[in-house]
Amino acid sequence: MSISSTITESGAAIASGQLSPIDLVEQSLEATDALGSLGAFAQVDVDGAREQAARLTHELAAGHHRGPLHGIPFGIKSLIDVKGVESTSSSAVRAGRVPTEDAAVVTALRRSGAVIIGSTHSHEFAYGLTTPTTRNPHDVDRIPGGSSGGSAAALASSQVLGALGTDTGGSIRVPAALTGVVGLKPTYGLLPSAGVASLSWSLDHVGPMARTVHDTALVLAAFGDRHLRDSASATRHVVDVASDIQHGGEGLRVGVPTNFFFDRVQPGVENVARASIEALGEAGARLVPVTVPMSHLYHPTQWGLMVPEASAYHQEQLHTSADLYGSDVRGLLEAGEMFLATDYVRAQRARTLIARAWDEMFSTVDVLVAPSTPVTATLVGQEVLTWADGTSESVSDAYVRLSAPANLTGRPAVSVPAGTDAEGLPVGVQVIGRPFAERSLLRAAATIEKAALPG
Amino acid sequence: MSISSTITESGAAIASGQLSPIDLVEQSLEATDALGSLGAFAQVDVDGAREQAARLTHELAAGHHRGPLHGIPFGIKSLIDVKGVESTSSSAVRAGRVPTEDAAVVTALRRSGAVIIGSTHSHEFAYGLTTPTTRNPHDVDRIPGGSSGGSAAALASSQVLGALGTDTGGSIRVPAALTGVVGLKPTYGLLPSAGVASLSWSLDHVGPMARTVHDTALVLAAFGDRHLRDSASATRHVVDVASDIQHGGEGLRVGVPTNFFFDRVQPGVENVARASIEALGEAGARLVPVTVPMSHLYHPTQWGLMVPEASAYHQEQLHTSADLYGSDVRGLLEAGEMFLATDYVRAQRARTLIARAWDEMFSTVDVLVAPSTPVTATLVGQEVLTWADGTSESVSDAYVRLSAPANLTGRPAVSVPAGTDAEGLPVGVQVIGRPFAERSLLRAAATIEKAALPG
Repeated sequence: MSISSTITESGAAIASGQLSPIDLVEQSLEATDALGSLGAFAQVDVDGAREQAARLTHELAAGHHRGPLHGIPFGIKSLIDVKGVESTSSSAVRAGRVPTEDAAVVTALRRSGAVIIGSTHSHEFAYGLTTPTTRNPHDVDRIPGGSSGGSAAALASSQVLGALGTDTGGSIRVPAALTGVVGLKPTYGLLPSAGVASLSWSLDHVGPMARTVHDTALVLAAFGDRHLRDSASATRHVVDVASDIQHGGEGLRVGVPTNFFFDRVQPGVENVARASIEALGEAGARLVPVTVPMSHLYHPTQWGLMVPEASAYHQEQLHTSADLYGSDVRGLLEAGEMFLATDYVRAQRARTLIARAWDEMFSTVDVLVAPSTPVTATLVGQEVLTWADGTSESVSDAYVRLSAPANLTGRPAVSVPAGTDAEGLPVGVQVIGRPFAERSLLRAAATIEKAALPG
Repeated sequence: MSISSTITESGAAIASGQLSPIDLVEQSLEATDALGSLGAFAQVDVDGAREQAARLTHELAAGHHRGPLHGIPFGIKSLIDVKGVESTSSSAVRAGRVPTEDAAVVTALRRSGAVIIGSTHSHEFAYGLTTPTTRNPHDVDRIPGGSSGGSAAALASSQVLGALGTDTGGSIRVPAALTGVVGLKPTYGLLPSAGVASLSWSLDHVGPMARTVHDTALVLAAFGDRHLRDSASATRHVVDVASDIQHGGEGLRVGVPTNFFFDRVQPGVENVARASIEALGEAGARLVPVTVPMSHLYHPTQWGLMVPEASAYHQEQLHTSADLYGSDVRGLLEAGEMFLATDYVRAQRARTLIARAWDEMFSTVDVLVAPSTPVTATLVGQEVLTWADGTSESVSDAYVRLSAPANLTGRPAVSVPAGTDAEGLPVGVQVIGRPFAERSLLRAAATIEKAALPG
């Protein structure tokens, strides 16, 4: 049983005594060393990881098994505090910052037996979609996407089996899509934000990333998600989630967007997304064409909220340490200081109207299925995309375009690997759902994942 | 039984057949005519009121009694839509505007049998504390306070027995205090805002005003308040509320502020408020000294939220019809267009911190008792107050100072007439409570009201 496995398989091997946490964590540490050139990790906590693995191995010997995450190696995005590990949000502004407490989500993972391998790279303060420190394991000349690019690259290259990311406009789903892993942005407010650096407090989400849909469900269960928590014990959770996922998308009403989500999308991406939808139909889902409302407002509303909120969060620091920010992030933070309050208030009101219109749309469907991103991973350094209709768009705008609506509306959304384009690059398909209905998302995602597998 | 009575008394007389809705409404219409010089009403709907009264009188003859508001005359603040009655928010910007639908709160009143006499004057768009169109019935050289000054003056001069107001920083409680009536700002979100013009959406509240605490409870019950709705029927509501109020403040833990709420307060106002607190202690309440947290932030936070929200609401109108606004309101709206988004975001974060600190403070008390306003009614035209400590303050800032914290925190607050100052002007005392605990507020208010009555 090697690190290239999954949480599900490795966890079972640990539970049955075939694999020890010490061995699995050593494999993880070896991989971080061998694959250091990918730049997935900002800091690897070798001593801490070994100490955790040893303790968890002793616990097993004493008959104490914490559940499916017992001994599983995790990477934690650098915006999320890990006690004793430099957690800098990948910014020079926070160089040398070592938290004395874990973020609430990290505490939950540790209680479930997870081993924290280290802090993974982010686009600086999560304010970008490329993660320039990090490369895509599928093609090192390409970006991993961002801002949770380090967590995605670490998973895709099997340095860890689970990870945490944050998602303000797509920062979990975009790198998950571009590197071929699963990334879940839960419902707004489901997971606690204590100990997580903020980009834009009204749009920020923290969430799990993993190599499979089933693994993602296991990580989510560790946070005591209120829907998974219905059953009595940790073991019951797992059985329930597993059986739910086995049902796949059968019986779900799947919304198929007739506008917006397939506009200005690469043909290779569209083909994969259409095949995913077809697979859902074949699996017994009911396909329902839906018109996505108010789509011309998503971009200005997302930026109208995010940019001033980010600038408010960084205001003192920007005035004292502007030079320590990267030029792209500094530019955005300075721009945000010029936004007018009335524009922000109007963006808030637009968000309310968008959310209400989405509520209406979801009265006829359980989930919506669409591409996670309009393009697969671009080459490092590429800044602009040109579309077949002659329009052009910045790479950042393109990557955030299809993912931001779920941030604006606070709805859960998962990106699942659904196939590859003509160049063999991973394509992610997104399932967006009802608030707190993460189960339905993962069921639909399981069908898509299964259809994407060869054979 | 004359119009100078209360809802409780007139309602009982109507229920027992001693008084007809037609007679009571005629008395109300005569009063609006005789007291027109007070400027309480913007428009009196003579025909509509007579028609409602006739229908309600016929209903009674047919054996249908809608409850304690059956046939009771009401004034409705001009921000609140009344079908068929010019509802202008007391602004030239909306001259001639006649709604085709009632606001949700007006619909609820009508279902309970209330008769809508007309639209009462507001400070223009609720954006001020004086209501310059209207005079104080206790001294016509003085202001009634605002912005719900028309509703307050109409009640204080017995033109109506019930009224509705709106409260964004104190606009129900300030005029209630200055004219000697009861005004309740309910918990944020308790009453629906549909059909009510907005001043500042995150601080706006609509609520009842009446001549006594018991009357106020009867009006609140008409909205199906979820705490009053526990019991089965309309009759049960009344019995329950009445018996609750009879208990007064006995057994409540009453917070007595040791800071902020008694700073820069006229001695005559302080004396009355201290006497109210003493009366609560004598009635069996437990007096608990409390320190009010973060008080230096209330003023900048209130203004930092309200001013840009108001400007966003009026933006198009201000750009096309600036000349139609009064100079004070126009000045505020134009100022709001220059506020920065980062300052607004920081004000929102300050509000969150204030609300949390108040939650903590309320862990040891059920209600807080304090003056509603630092001064009684000022003379018409007075713009500045000078305090004993040598500082000066605008009249508007003073009137909003003690009431705004309940808007910032969304907590319910009632102003109750508690006595008079040396000049015989009414003094209002405020009871602030826990979210959705309007019952406790009214119980404490009943004790204060009783102690204020001569004999």
